[in-house]
Amino acid sequence: MSIKSLLETANETNITIAGAGPIGALLAVILGRKGFKVNLFESRPDSRQHDIYQGKSINIALSDRGWLALEAVGIAEQVRQAAIPMKKRIMHAIDGTLTEQSYGKDGQAIWSVSRSGINEQLLDLAEKEASVALHFEKRLTHVDFNTGCASFSFDVAQSKNHIEIDADYIFGADGAFSKVRRLAQETPRFSYSQSYMPQSYIELTIPANENEIGDARFKMEKEALHIWPRKDFMLIALPNPDGTFTCTLFLNYKNEPDKNGECDYSFDSLKDRSKVVKFFNENFADAMPLLENPIDDFMEKSANPLFLVNVDPWVINNKVALIGDAAHAMVPFYGQGMNCGFEDCRELGDLIDQYKGEWSDIFPAYQRQRKINADAITELAKRNFFEMSELSADCNFQLQKKIEAKFHQLHPNLWVPLYSMVTFCPHLPYSQALKIGEQQKVIMAKIMQIPNIEVCWQDDFIYKKLQQLVQSHLKQEENKNV
Amino acid sequence: MSIKSLLETANETNITIAGAGPIGALLAVILGRKGFKVNLFESRPDSRQHDIYQGKSINIALSDRGWLALEAVGIAEQVRQAAIPMKKRIMHAIDGTLTEQSYGKDGQAIWSVSRSGINEQLLDLAEKEASVALHFEKRLTHVDFNTGCASFSFDVAQSKNHIEIDADYIFGADGAFSKVRRLAQETPRFSYSQSYMPQSYIELTIPANENEIGDARFKMEKEALHIWPRKDFMLIALPNPDGTFTCTLFLNYKNEPDKNGECDYSFDSLKDRSKVVKFFNENFADAMPLLENPIDDFMEKSANPLFLVNVDPWVINNKVALIGDAAHAMVPFYGQGMNCGFEDCRELGDLIDQYKGEWSDIFPAYQRQRKINADAITELAKRNFFEMSELSADCNFQLQKKIEAKFHQLHPNLWVPLYSMVTFCPHLPYSQALKIGEQQKVIMAKIMQIPNIEVCWQDDFIYKKLQQLVQSHLKQEENKNV
Repeated sequence: MSIKSLLETANETNITIAGAGPIGALLAVILGRKGFKVNLFESRPDSRQHDIYQGKSINIALSDRGWLALEAVGIAEQVRQAAIPMKKRIMHAIDGTLTEQSYGKDGQAIWSVSRSGINEQLLDLAEKEASVALHFEKRLTHVDFNTGCASFSFDVAQSKNHIEIDADYIFGADGAFSKVRRLAQETPRFSYSQSYMPQSYIELTIPANENEIGDARFKMEKEALHIWPRKDFMLIALPNPDGTFTCTLFLNYKNEPDKNGECDYSFDSLKDRSKVVKFFNENFADAMPLLENPIDDFMEKSANPLFLVNVDPWVINNKVALIGDAAHAMVPFYGQGMNCGFEDCRELGDLIDQYKGEWSDIFPAYQRQRKINADAITELAKRNFFEMSELSADCNFQLQKKIEAKFHQLHPNLWVPLYSMVTFCPHLPYSQALKIGEQQKVIMAKIMQIPNIEVCWQDDFIYKKLQQLVQSHLKQEENKNV
Repeated sequence: MSIKSLLETANETNITIAGAGPIGALLAVILGRKGFKVNLFESRPDSRQHDIYQGKSINIALSDRGWLALEAVGIAEQVRQAAIPMKKRIMHAIDGTLTEQSYGKDGQAIWSVSRSGINEQLLDLAEKEASVALHFEKRLTHVDFNTGCASFSFDVAQSKNHIEIDADYIFGADGAFSKVRRLAQETPRFSYSQSYMPQSYIELTIPANENEIGDARFKMEKEALHIWPRKDFMLIALPNPDGTFTCTLFLNYKNEPDKNGECDYSFDSLKDRSKVVKFFNENFADAMPLLENPIDDFMEKSANPLFLVNVDPWVINNKVALIGDAAHAMVPFYGQGMNCGFEDCRELGDLIDQYKGEWSDIFPAYQRQRKINADAITELAKRNFFEMSELSADCNFQLQKKIEAKFHQLHPNLWVPLYSMVTFCPHLPYSQALKIGEQQKVIMAKIMQIPNIEVCWQDDFIYKKLQQLVQSHLKQEENKNV
C-alpha cells in the first residue's frame, strides 16, 4: 500500500463549507492551501459587489488570538492597516467624569476592525486559491448527515432552482443562526441549547467631525473603547477609521413586573418618546451632543436579541462539523466571538497536519480540543456583562485591577490578569485561563480584605503577601499532581 | 360593562390542543368541563380502534400527584382497578440475593398503570364533553404564534389535505418530541435546551406463567418494582395486570474510548451475539430464566435515547402554551414524568378558576407556578439514575434510608424522606421538596459520620441528635426570615 501525502489525499477530498462570513472564508483559505477541493456557499450576495451589511455589528474587537490566525494565513498586516488599536477602556460616569483602565501593558491593545472589511479581505484571499470555488446567493436547504450531500436553492430569473453538492465532508460555518445546526437537531443524540440573555441591543452612531482630518475627526478619544456603565444597562462605543464611533446600547428587553429595583428601564417600557428622551438625557448626558439622532434610532430600530448556544457533539457522523458561531455563539461582552472562531480554524488546520489528513482522527481531536475552550470563553463572556456594566464603575474593582496590573509588572511569570490571559495570551487555552482566573479570584478576595487596602495598596507588603499566596497555591497544585 | 361568568367567557373561547396523549386528553377534559370549545388533535390513529402503541413504555408509575389530578376529574377509581401497587423496590444483586426498600409507610405505594389504558380512559372521558371534539390522524404542520391559527395535514384516499384551525389559544401537549416546541424555536427570545443522557434503553419482557390464575401468574413478586442495579447500567421491571413484567434495560449508548473504568458495556460495544449472551448471563443470571428472548430482543431492537428538555418561556405571546413533556421532558428515573404533566393540567384548571378565565393572568401565573417545579423534578429525575443504579445496592445508602424512615415514623412533622415528599405529598411543590431534600442531605451526612452508625443506628441518641439538628436548622431558617 502506498502512503499518500497530505496533498495527494487533499486533492481527492471534496469539502463543502456553508457560510462565507469571516470564519467560513478563513476556513476556505486554510483548507484550500492544503489542497482540499472546497466549495464555499453563502446565502447572501457577495458583499464586495453589493452593499448588504445590515443588522450586523459594523465593527468588532480583534485581539491576539484573532491576529495569530490571520498571521498564519499572511493577512494580518493588511488587516491591521485599517484597524484601530483600543489601548484602554474609558468609563463615562453619569456626571460626565471620565476614568480609564488600560487593557494590558504598554503596546497591548484590542483592535477595532470592520467586520465586512475583514470578511472581504478573506474572501479575496480564498478566491486566489485554485481549489476553492465561491458560490453566493445559494441558500442551504438540506444536509444528508450520512452521505455529505448538501442541497442549496437559488433564484434564476425569478424561478427557484436547486442544486445538490456531494462532498466528503461538510462544515457549518453559518453563524449564530446556523441552518446546518438546526438540521443537525434532528439527528440522534444531538444535545443543543440556546439561552437568551435578558438584555437586547440596538446600534447608534457618533458621526465624525466633518471638516477635520486625521484624529481630529473623532469626537471622543480615538484609541479607546468607551463605556457608559449603568449597572442594568450600558452604552459602549468603538472607533471606526472614518472618524465615526459605532455605539451599542445594551438594555433589558423586558423587566419582570414584580421587580423591586429602582431601575425600570427596558426596551419594552420605553415606548413613549418623552420617556426615551428622559432616559437618554438622564443616563448619557455627555454622549447626547455627540450621538446622531439617538431618539429617532431608538424609536425606529427593533432590539436585537443576545443569546448563547451550546452544542454537543460538534461533529456528526465524522462527516459534518460545526465551526465558529454555529458551534458556540456567545454574547459579545468579552469581544472574543470572532477570535474564538478564528482560533477554531487555525487549530483545525494544525490538526489536519498533525493527523496527515486522516479525518477520522482530525474530527474527534477537533471536538475534544475546541469544545472545552469554546465552553470556557462562552461562560466568561456571559459573566463579563456584569464586569462591564457594573464593576467597571466600582472603585473597589478598579483598585483590584490596579493591584493586579502592578503585581503582573513585578512578577510577570506569577500573575497575568484574567483579561490579559484571554486577550493577549493566544497560546493559552481559554479553559486554562478560566481555571487560573478562578484561583486568582480567591487570592484577590483575600488581598482586598486587608484593612485600608485603598490607602496602602502600593506598599511592598501587599505584593509580598500576594507572592506568598500564589506560591503556596502553586505548591498545593504541585503536590496534588505528585 | 357587564361582567361575564367564566362559563359565558369559556363558551366564546376556542382552544386547540395538539397531542391527544394522556396529558392532552386530561387537559381537554378539564377545559371542556369549564365550557371551553376544545379541538383536540392527534397525528396518530385512535388507539381505541387501532393497536398502535409501539415504542412507548407499556406501563408507567403513577403516584399521588397523578392520582390527585385524576381524582379531580373523577376517574381515579376506574384507573385504580387496572393498576398494580408497587409498595417497595426489590434489588436483585449479581449473585441473586434479594433485598428490599419500602417506598413509603404502610399503605403507600406507586402504581404500575398501562399508558395506553389510561390514555384511552381519558379520551373516553374527553369525548363525553359536548364542547370537546377529537381529531385523529391529523399532523400539525404550522402554528401562527400571533393569531393562534394552526395547520394540520391529513390523508384522504392517499392524497394530502390541509386544514387550518383558528383558535384563541393553543396548547402544545405533543410530548417529548413536540412539534409545537420545535416551531416555537423560531420565535424571538425562545430559550431551549435538549440534553442527551449517556444512557439509552430497550424494553424486554418477562411473560406470565401460562397455566396459572391470579397472582400465581407473576414469575416474580408482584407488588414491587424490581431493580438489577449494576452501577453503570441497570435493568428494572414493572408488573402488568396480565401477569407479565415490562422490563427496561438502561445502558450507555457508547463509552468514551479513553474511559479507565472496568465496565466497557454499551449498546455500541455489544454488537456480537456471544458478547451479548455473556453480558446477560454475567449480570442478570437470575432474570435470564424469566426473560423472553432477551438476546434476540437486544440484537434486534434499536436503543431509545433518553433526554431532557428545558424551555423558557412556556407561554408564547400569551397565545400558545406548552404543557407536559412538551414543556419539560425528563428522564424516567423518578417515575414522575406523567405525574408532573397531570399536575400541570390540574393546577392550570385551578388557575383558570382563580383568574376567572382571564388568560392574560392565567398564562403568566401558569408559567411562574409550573416552570420552577418542573425544573426541580427534572433535576431530581436526572440525579436518581445514580440512586437507582448504584446507591440502591450500597449498604450505607440502605442504612441511611432506614434511619430516615424510622425518624419519619417518630417525627412525621419534622422529617419526610425526599422520595416520599416527591411521591406521596402531592400538595408540596417539587421545588420545595428539592430544597428540603438538600437540607436533609447535609443533616444526614452528619448522622452517617457517627462512629459505628451501622451498629447503633437504632439507638435513641441517634434520633435525639437528628431532632436537634433539624430543630436548629429550622430556627436558623426562622431567623433568616425575621
